[in-house]
Amino acid sequence: MSEAEAGDKPFGTVAIVGVGLIGGSLGMALRQSGLARTVVGVEPEQSRVMAAHAAGAIDHGTTDWGKGTAGADLVVLSTPVGHILEIVRDVLAWVEPGTVVTDVGSTKSAIVKRAGDNPFFVGGHPMTGSEKIGVEAARADLFNGATWALTPTPHTDPHALALVERLAQTVGAKTLTLTADAHDAMTAVTSHLPHVLASSLMRQAAEMRETYHHAGRLSAGSFADATRVAASSPPLWRDVCLSNKDALFAALQHFRGQLDVLEAALEAGDGAALEAFFAQGRDAKADWEAGRMFPEQPPPFR
Amino acid sequence: MSEAEAGDKPFGTVAIVGVGLIGGSLGMALRQSGLARTVVGVEPEQSRVMAAHAAGAIDHGTTDWGKGTAGADLVVLSTPVGHILEIVRDVLAWVEPGTVVTDVGSTKSAIVKRAGDNPFFVGGHPMTGSEKIGVEAARADLFNGATWALTPTPHTDPHALALVERLAQTVGAKTLTLTADAHDAMTAVTSHLPHVLASSLMRQAAEMRETYHHAGRLSAGSFADATRVAASSPPLWRDVCLSNKDALFAALQHFRGQLDVLEAALEAGDGAALEAFFAQGRDAKADWEAGRMFPEQPPPFR
Repeated sequence: MSEAEAGDKPFGTVAIVGVGLIGGSLGMALRQSGLARTVVGVEPEQSRVMAAHAAGAIDHGTTDWGKGTAGADLVVLSTPVGHILEIVRDVLAWVEPGTVVTDVGSTKSAIVKRAGDNPFFVGGHPMTGSEKIGVEAARADLFNGATWALTPTPHTDPHALALVERLAQTVGAKTLTLTADAHDAMTAVTSHLPHVLASSLMRQAAEMRETYHHAGRLSAGSFADATRVAASSPPLWRDVCLSNKDALFAALQHFRGQLDVLEAALEAGDGAALEAFFAQGRDAKADWEAGRMFPEQPPPFR
Repeated sequence: MSEAEAGDKPFGTVAIVGVGLIGGSLGMALRQSGLARTVVGVEPEQSRVMAAHAAGAIDHGTTDWGKGTAGADLVVLSTPVGHILEIVRDVLAWVEPGTVVTDVGSTKSAIVKRAGDNPFFVGGHPMTGSEKIGVEAARADLFNGATWALTPTPHTDPHALALVERLAQTVGAKTLTLTADAHDAMTAVTSHLPHVLASSLMRQAAEMRETYHHAGRLSAGSFADATRVAASSPPLWRDVCLSNKDALFAALQHFRGQLDVLEAALEAGDGAALEAFFAQGRDAKADWEAGRMFPEQPPPFR
């Protein structure tokens, strides 16, 4: 693209591979910003290409990622983690040198590793979403106020990083730059573990129906909230688990340790210890909600 | 009260011991129904009595439960489980014979046992609430559409049960009659376990701050929902745990079994098993939400 064009349309031609909830919302927000010349969508089935177009998420689309990414200035891989792992090397080898490639996968270490030391790849993860899936659930304001994690390596080109930062900020997100490993360790606790807990609790309640037929009527808000994300996409969460195995294991181990504390207090009939257990959780929740627990401006990149 | 009065005001004088979120909401709803002659509130501190009155939850109040319940036709014990356990025998011994006493405690077996075989005691548990506490959070529609569990024993007077059923229905709840043990086994999974999981996850995230300073920015909706009820009252949940120890232990054991399934699949790198784990959770969630998992009309009382 020419210099003049770059000034008007800094993102140039953007190819979004996978126009679902995240990719579709990104396409909508980008088109509304007016800062992309064209938004091209790639979906494996023609009906999904048409759905993405009908939803206003793309200018045009194709079922062929090679065709869709050819000539793009910026490529966003927005499929489940397993698929990103499959295609990221091929995409980087296929696009013209200098084309910036980023992704929105929920785990980062495996993807960044797979991308090798390519300076034009920038790992990313917008911390937003829904248990709903597909472009039908997409909306231009999905990223408003959300954190968009970016995980560059020492090899990353500064201009590539700056372009992806601008992309995130253009659609309303706040960027947070950190290492892929730190990202994966934290999200194992703040995202992957909550999903595992939700599915586990939902499975357990379902198994209870053999014994207690009306358990479904004996639940309230705490159960509904605790199991909301059990409705999420199974293949997506399969991939998250597989690609973040070690961190998730560590998080589960730590979580079992929390249950150990509760059970020891319960076994001992120790009311003070039980009250302290819940009070520490309550205080942490209040701090977290108020933003007191973690600084808004994080310490320097590490 | 006379027959004529009973026709107009079937609940007569209602004493609510503990005018917090639940007791206060009940008082508001009862006063709006016009079916109680007087709603008397009991709170240990005069300032709380005044707050309950100011909120419109009671007609008048006192800090002395003996005075508050004297002459009542119906007494509702609406304090934390531990306090209900402390006072239920004294209340039953104190009130005039025939006065119906019920409670709204989150666990039922210990309370029903403590009440002995008194035919005028009816254990109850409205399945609603909030992580917020106090009469300031009370609202007359809190019980709308909620399940109100009732746990009579073979000794319970049918008229006493009918009066408490009518109370629950008057404020918009749907009654569900079952044994105290069945109630406690089910709510251990559908209510007590979600609270333990929420507090555990919140504690774990807080402990992570030692290593990762900006984890607070790396969370999204799944974490917020999973930890919502970590904000709940610590003494209340201490009492719930202590009074439902065996069922909660069993629920925790079962829950660890769910984590075992997930971890085994993860350890083996078994993508199909991981996908099945989440798919079973997703399907159960869909069935639960649609009311397909458990019949709206439960099987006969057992």
